[in-house]
Amino acid sequence: MDRVSAGARPLASAEIIAVGSELLGTTRIDTNSLFLAGRLASLGIDLRAKSVVGDDRATLAAAVTSALTRADLVLLTGGLGPTDDDLTREVVAGVLGLALHEQSAIVLQIEERFARRGLRMPDANRRQAMVPEGGVSLDNPNGTAPGLLIDHGEQVIVLLPGPPRELQPMFDGLCAGRLLARAGLERTFHASLFVAGRGESHVEEIVQPIYSGWVTGDAPIQTTILAMPGQVELHLAHRAQDPDAGARRVSAARDELAAALGRDVFSLDGRSLEEVVGGLLTDRGLTLSAAESCTGGLLLSRLTDVPGSSRYVLGGVVAYSNELKASLAGVPESTVAAHGAVSEAVAVALAEGIRARTGSSLAVGITGIAGPGGGTDQKPVGTVAIALAGRDMPSRARLFSFFGGRPQVKFQASQAGLDMVRRGLQFPQGG
Amino acid sequence: MDRVSAGARPLASAEIIAVGSELLGTTRIDTNSLFLAGRLASLGIDLRAKSVVGDDRATLAAAVTSALTRADLVLLTGGLGPTDDDLTREVVAGVLGLALHEQSAIVLQIEERFARRGLRMPDANRRQAMVPEGGVSLDNPNGTAPGLLIDHGEQVIVLLPGPPRELQPMFDGLCAGRLLARAGLERTFHASLFVAGRGESHVEEIVQPIYSGWVTGDAPIQTTILAMPGQVELHLAHRAQDPDAGARRVSAARDELAAALGRDVFSLDGRSLEEVVGGLLTDRGLTLSAAESCTGGLLLSRLTDVPGSSRYVLGGVVAYSNELKASLAGVPESTVAAHGAVSEAVAVALAEGIRARTGSSLAVGITGIAGPGGGTDQKPVGTVAIALAGRDMPSRARLFSFFGGRPQVKFQASQAGLDMVRRGLQFPQGG
Repeated sequence: MDRVSAGARPLASAEIIAVGSELLGTTRIDTNSLFLAGRLASLGIDLRAKSVVGDDRATLAAAVTSALTRADLVLLTGGLGPTDDDLTREVVAGVLGLALHEQSAIVLQIEERFARRGLRMPDANRRQAMVPEGGVSLDNPNGTAPGLLIDHGEQVIVLLPGPPRELQPMFDGLCAGRLLARAGLERTFHASLFVAGRGESHVEEIVQPIYSGWVTGDAPIQTTILAMPGQVELHLAHRAQDPDAGARRVSAARDELAAALGRDVFSLDGRSLEEVVGGLLTDRGLTLSAAESCTGGLLLSRLTDVPGSSRYVLGGVVAYSNELKASLAGVPESTVAAHGAVSEAVAVALAEGIRARTGSSLAVGITGIAGPGGGTDQKPVGTVAIALAGRDMPSRARLFSFFGGRPQVKFQASQAGLDMVRRGLQFPQGG
Repeated sequence: MDRVSAGARPLASAEIIAVGSELLGTTRIDTNSLFLAGRLASLGIDLRAKSVVGDDRATLAAAVTSALTRADLVLLTGGLGPTDDDLTREVVAGVLGLALHEQSAIVLQIEERFARRGLRMPDANRRQAMVPEGGVSLDNPNGTAPGLLIDHGEQVIVLLPGPPRELQPMFDGLCAGRLLARAGLERTFHASLFVAGRGESHVEEIVQPIYSGWVTGDAPIQTTILAMPGQVELHLAHRAQDPDAGARRVSAARDELAAALGRDVFSLDGRSLEEVVGGLLTDRGLTLSAAESCTGGLLLSRLTDVPGSSRYVLGGVVAYSNELKASLAGVPESTVAAHGAVSEAVAVALAEGIRARTGSSLAVGITGIAGPGGGTDQKPVGTVAIALAGRDMPSRARLFSFFGGRPQVKFQASQAGLDMVRRGLQFPQGG
């Protein structure tokens, strides 16, 4: 909070403009605005509208001009790259009537970034060092494009790079504090619960009688239910001026929902299932391996997305063919012959086999039909057997049937495998 | 095609406005615009911008007014329901200065819809029967909200219901023909090239002198460069009246860029790298396996996202620890001791080891430091060694240094591994 504009009108309203012709096609969508919407809500700044414009000077200028007639804060994302079609910096400076100057310190930073990889900075990148008069350049440790924050009378304009992994740390590290100092007193308090192993309508049946009482009254709480592949998310939002009271109210509401949903709740703090499983393994000093068939390595890949996962993930095998199930994971050919490759017995043999070969505390085995081919009447596409084996526990296995295309079946199977590990650790007596 | 406005200027440009406060939160996103973008492209109408506004009279009026200053066609989605916060019909009529009249035929239709379910029509639904002067009501067999098409001088405004299963048949059945009759004769032709192994600025240096010549002149082509982790995409768009000439022109332009970029181009038809590699393996009747350390199974998981991949992906291992590199993939401990776990020699040993154990035609070995921990001065986070081994070829290996957080390093490493397979198959003599 290095900026206080005493007496200035607080920032109450915001608009977001995403820049990029690729966002006007049939496949790509602006998702940065979802992140920014959440951050603006916590700052208590009302997001009134958002728009997407192509890499076109006139349309972008019109969009910026129009947003400035309505919003206290205008956030632009994208179009800060080094190429000819990256126009955001120039167009915003033009609309505000500010001259652009090259800042040599920024040129140096970008040159160093290239030099670290043994490369020469292309001339095109110099335009990324242009800063409008009175603007503050925002350092970008994750890319070449610095951001910009421009104080313009009682309004603020922020330019952020398009890639989420550059935009998000830049907003949290360099913008949120400055904007907080300019925002009003009311904040939005959030809480969330993530649920696995239960569908959206069943979650809704359980929680609707509870949250419907919170919508009206003195301190309303807004509840959003979001169905994702393999998990249902509940998001709570509550506006209050007193930070302690606001946080208490929304936590109490979350805990009431969690009690009703029981063991299916895997996260109260926004952590993904792979992070939760990693935390449980770390706490207990245990290790994990996996033998995957239809998920093709997705379960291990998700586990190893978590920093520090090398402490508890030993590794495993991906075995599509029955030959590799035998040679890599020690699945007896007789088990496949007796039960079929997609069976609880083969899932158990995969889990126990890979656990024996890696020496891990726990192991997961997955075998199934991801589709679109390979289904039969008895075992249609989406049939997946998953097993968990452990040093001091009897192996457990379950047959699932998942809906959706190949990537959805793969994801849900990896999710069910991770959830089986979670339940095995949290509820060793079964659950 | 039941409408011809002889002499009217053709509809060339469009904007989309999605209405609904729920689309300004952190979870819901407007996807109708993806469907409409595709339909507009086939009509040859250029989508210039799209926006989302909440259920707020003033903001919606400002957005409609602003869009009408720029676009020939304004498409609004949502806000046609029966409740108080459904404002689209009223606000658009207000902006255009048109009075609304209740159409008794529409009231009857909505009443009948309710009656079929044994229900009485709530009074609130009468507002759905309000039609502005000169507007055409669009029947909605899938919901209560009719759409509206308004001819306004040389401009057209279309109001569509928000739910996709109501919007899509209404657009295709009742709007597309009317708009086609008003659109010009021009259509847009698209082409794309995907590049791996080269950064955005270097691609730009190569292609900018070529495409900059296409921007002006008789038949301009618009080029968009898009940097993704591990790949750079070039998208070309070209408007023409003659379908054969248009398709030829954009293909010739694409081929000119492809020739300049050479072996780094992996896709001319929008296919992902894993699909391209799958196609090459299938064509040649070859199989693949992999031994992954820092990518944790991501390369195999991406390969097995492709339907039919079980024909050419045999499987592989994920080996984080040196012990598992030895026991699962046969990497000699002496190789690790002599070169370090992250080295081209260990990558080659992983590839050759897993190829021997699976009997695959080709194999990839990957070992590196995904971070955030584990980096050293000599081998910082992002250092990854990748090798390709094959039945009838000398193994090849390369040391990469990738930027970004853990998931970005993992993704780029899997991309470089897949690209090494592609180059090995397309350019067996090296490339």
